[in-house]
Amino acid sequence: MSSNYLNFRNSVPWLILLLETLFIVRSYFLFLRLDGQYLLHDSYPEFQDVNHMVIFGFGFFLMVLRRYGFSSTGFNLLIIVLGVQCSVLVEDLFIFFYPGANEGVLKSIEKALISMTAVIISTGAVLGKINLVQLIVMTLVELIVFYVSRWINRTFLEVGDHLSLMHVHLFGAYFGLAVTSCFPEPSPGLDKNRSAPKSDLLSMLGSVFLWVFWPSFNSLLAESKTKAILNTYFALAVSAVTAFMLSALTAKDGKFRMTHIRSAVLAGGVTISYAAESISHPWIAMILGLLGSVITILGSQCLQSCFNPPLKIHDTSGVHFTFGLPAVLGVLAQVVLLVVREWTNSSRLDYLVLLHIGAFCQTISVALITGFITGSVLNTRLLKIIPVSKYFEDQFYWEFPHLAVGF
Amino acid sequence: MSSNYLNFRNSVPWLILLLETLFIVRSYFLFLRLDGQYLLHDSYPEFQDVNHMVIFGFGFFLMVLRRYGFSSTGFNLLIIVLGVQCSVLVEDLFIFFYPGANEGVLKSIEKALISMTAVIISTGAVLGKINLVQLIVMTLVELIVFYVSRWINRTFLEVGDHLSLMHVHLFGAYFGLAVTSCFPEPSPGLDKNRSAPKSDLLSMLGSVFLWVFWPSFNSLLAESKTKAILNTYFALAVSAVTAFMLSALTAKDGKFRMTHIRSAVLAGGVTISYAAESISHPWIAMILGLLGSVITILGSQCLQSCFNPPLKIHDTSGVHFTFGLPAVLGVLAQVVLLVVREWTNSSRLDYLVLLHIGAFCQTISVALITGFITGSVLNTRLLKIIPVSKYFEDQFYWEFPHLAVGF
Amino acid sequence: MSSNYLNFRNSVPWLILLLETLFIVRSYFLFLRLDGQYLLHDSYPEFQDVNHMVIFGFGFFLMVLRRYGFSSTGFNLLIIVLGVQCSVLVEDLFIFFYPGANEGVLKSIEKALISMTAVIISTGAVLGKINLVQLIVMTLVELIVFYVSRWINRTFLEVGDHLSLMHVHLFGAYFGLAVTSCFPEPSPGLDKNRSAPKSDLLSMLGSVFLWVFWPSFNSLLAESKTKAILNTYFALAVSAVTAFMLSALTAKDGKFRMTHIRSAVLAGGVTISYAAESISHPWIAMILGLLGSVITILGSQCLQSCFNPPLKIHDTSGVHFTFGLPAVLGVLAQVVLLVVREWTNSSRLDYLVLLHIGAFCQTISVALITGFITGSVLNTRLLKIIPVSKYFEDQFYWEFPHLAVGF
Repeated sequence: MSSNYLNFRNSVPWLILLLETLFIVRSYFLFLRLDGQYLLHDSYPEFQDVNHMVIFGFGFFLMVLRRYGFSSTGFNLLIIVLGVQCSVLVEDLFIFFYPGANEGVLKSIEKALISMTAVIISTGAVLGKINLVQLIVMTLVELIVFYVSRWINRTFLEVGDHLSLMHVHLFGAYFGLAVTSCFPEPSPGLDKNRSAPKSDLLSMLGSVFLWVFWPSFNSLLAESKTKAILNTYFALAVSAVTAFMLSALTAKDGKFRMTHIRSAVLAGGVTISYAAESISHPWIAMILGLLGSVITILGSQCLQSCFNPPLKIHDTSGVHFTFGLPAVLGVLAQVVLLVVREWTNSSRLDYLVLLHIGAFCQTISVALITGFITGSVLNTRLLKIIPVSKYFEDQFYWEFPHLAVGF
Repeated sequence: MSSNYLNFRNSVPWLILLLETLFIVRSYFLFLRLDGQYLLHDSYPEFQDVNHMVIFGFGFFLMVLRRYGFSSTGFNLLIIVLGVQCSVLVEDLFIFFYPGANEGVLKSIEKALISMTAVIISTGAVLGKINLVQLIVMTLVELIVFYVSRWINRTFLEVGDHLSLMHVHLFGAYFGLAVTSCFPEPSPGLDKNRSAPKSDLLSMLGSVFLWVFWPSFNSLLAESKTKAILNTYFALAVSAVTAFMLSALTAKDGKFRMTHIRSAVLAGGVTISYAAESISHPWIAMILGLLGSVITILGSQCLQSCFNPPLKIHDTSGVHFTFGLPAVLGVLAQVVLLVVREWTNSSRLDYLVLLHIGAFCQTISVALITGFITGSVLNTRLLKIIPVSKYFEDQFYWEFPHLAVGF
Repeated sequence: MSSNYLNFRNSVPWLILLLETLFIVRSYFLFLRLDGQYLLHDSYPEFQDVNHMVIFGFGFFLMVLRRYGFSSTGFNLLIIVLGVQCSVLVEDLFIFFYPGANEGVLKSIEKALISMTAVIISTGAVLGKINLVQLIVMTLVELIVFYVSRWINRTFLEVGDHLSLMHVHLFGAYFGLAVTSCFPEPSPGLDKNRSAPKSDLLSMLGSVFLWVFWPSFNSLLAESKTKAILNTYFALAVSAVTAFMLSALTAKDGKFRMTHIRSAVLAGGVTISYAAESISHPWIAMILGLLGSVITILGSQCLQSCFNPPLKIHDTSGVHFTFGLPAVLGVLAQVVLLVVREWTNSSRLDYLVLLHIGAFCQTISVALITGFITGSVLNTRLLKIIPVSKYFEDQFYWEFPHLAVGF
């Protein structure tokens, strides 16, 4: 192994130790107390759904690469637990300044899990190309930037708490894209870069798993939970149907492409995330699910042929079309629905539309700019980038005692 | 690829599009509203259990064939989302005529998911032999016929709503058998037709998954939920034990056969489904679980040697003995329990027994007759049957870019 | 096959039949009734979490051996359903003598599932080396001994019901170790004894699955559920982080070792199990999670090089360091926390500390002694031990029709 690799070895555990010490020391002064939170127990089943979905489901879902299964699942768990602790402490610092904002630890963890989804989505874009030191730095930077972006949205743009969290897909996808655009592309003939039938199957199971729990995700902090659940369910149902339809229409000889299906079945859930709690007719949710799936599959075709090659962007698991485009569509849909609903009340309408578009522009531009800066910093010699030939390779990070005795 | 295949390509997406348009247009006039359903939120965890079980669990469970994993999981998701939408709209039409029957959207989806189990069970019988156009047509026909059969049971035979849904295993298994009897048998030497150790393992995990959630399935719409949960749990426990016992007794040299275990661990849940909410002694539930498992394993031996070959029925994943026979036993058990319970009240007993037997005969005969008609229609040239040599093959439906670079 | 094997064949199903008959006959006289338990329905989602975790999660988790997947999952299900029935009936006998102790069937099953975890942990130590007759005998003996040990703790040592159940990891690990020390070691060059990348991946997924549900496990019967949930969550988070840190530090060239990660991510949950409901500062839970993970990974290094070889102990899936050491640490932590908390109240302190240490010593010594006796009895000719060359082999127990046609 090269000396670069040994440097990497030396830094990973110490970085983790440093962070963990910081978390534990900080939590000694924690303002969030565990006592007197018995009432929160009601939302435990929904919390458990989202916990299950984020940790197990995404670990499964990211298992697309043929030789990167250990890292996909393992690193997913690692960055989530680091991120949730970091996020709880950021929240706690916030409570120090605004004591009235204390909503209890369980709610903090719920928000932390939803915020972490942004990081997991970004991870999907750089999957296999980023080493663990870089991944941890990216996680912390992205979480804090997302927290700041949410704070701007809530304070200056009158976005509610739940809605500010639903920008998670938009932020995660564009942050990840900006980061990945700074990394060198893998050589085109590489086969480690592709999926194997086994990994595709596991990833499809992960996708179905996410599909099942998406209504819980969209309704966890919503005010009218039942509405959010039902609308998400209908949108997901239609986007699953549309995924199969369009995949057959766009593929060469009418076969289904697993990448399309995996991404597009979830598109409805992403698209509806902003508007789920305010739609009162299922048919609107269904139309949104349909459009989400359409934009995902058409986007996947366009991006891979027209957009990514000139910009030299290599988006490993396709987060741009899986999460980015449907989220953009979701914001548009939310604005259109708002205009339709508040048409009569024209005095306030302009202002409201402006706020929504402002929140969208703020989120996406912060994501792109900080993502690009993060990507550039990560790509310096300091953080020991891995050589392109070692991309997408579990053996770079994990011991393989199995090899000694043959598979 | 043959021109037949290209025809197939042309029709699948348009068929799906047509259906989805219909669903969306219809839902514009929907009578089920999303507002004012906050109270239903209580049953969300149980709903989520059943949703998880039907979509993820059955997708896993059906992964028995060595080269049919993509289709098993993918098509399972597709037909469930189509079926649930279809079922919600049929329910909605019904509410148009009987406005008092409105119980809310969540309950509609719950009923739709349970009804879809009939279709998934039928799918198990024709797994790998039916193309996607045929599968979708079968789904819609079966759902509507099952709805009509339930309506007859409820209106003329005084069967309650929950109990009418529990006929789902009986209906699904015999409908599937009747359909598969119309399809040509695969050639006996085919190895695609068999399972591989990997697919057997995944399917076993799926079976354990279903096992865990079966109490939620049997109690979802039951009146005395706790009783239904506990009785189902005991019946499942005993049937799992019996499955291992009988599998060792019937196999050649005392080894366990995975097919036996997979099917028979679930037999208790199917057998008890009718009587779960009315049994007050666990030992009765346990006896039923035992008998369910016995009939499944003995049935599997008899059917495969004596019944299927002369009738030229090829039942891919063995739904006849997994779901059909235990359901028949369940109806018998329900009648016997009724007789024992109402012995003193002889005036009404005859009538009640007649009703139960009538519901059973009506369900099974409707399933067999319509299944046979559906199978015959599906087998016409119009619906482009696939050649026997292409049975059980993922590559017939899915792109395999993996092959280009070797596995 | 040898005649030994045929004897084994003859005895397994009859043993199961005998047990099941006993259970059914006994349940005829059951004092636990199913009526009037509607109030218990509230805890169903948590019950379902634990049920899912114990049956599906551990079945997944134990799938470490390359050729033992069928048996890991299948036998796990079998012994759980046998054990739960046995445990419910032992509980019922107890209610016969102390009628006031009746808390309903659902609570009995919950306790049974938690008690079964002891057996599953012990199974991990002898995985692949014990035949099914031996496994069933071990299950029943261990369950009953654990019940007696719990009864002593509750009656003479003032340990509460929840806390007495939390000794399950300690008891299971040391009972399993004592049993496995009586079995002959496999020859060192054997490759069936190792994991394959596929089995490691599945086992890692199982470990993540257990991680997600561990808070439900630790809080199921706790009095202050929310506290138990949150403390367990924090402890698990820190132990997952520490696992990655220490695995990189201890391995030869800074790579992660899957065995470390799999075991150590769960260590926090085991360590905190005793103290979870009494800790009011998250930082204490975090420190415990850290220490749990440290002791697991260092323990795994020491035990495998210094402790196991001289004592000739072969611990297949490493239960000693995964469950045993963290549980010992947990008891220590509980005593230290007690001393700190009750420092002022010195009159009662000595007595309380003595009780806790007494309960620990009683549990571990009962586990070791009865485990050793059980192991010796299991190793007699009567119970037909399997030859060392047939260890870790699915084909010893299961039919492999796949082989006839090639993989």
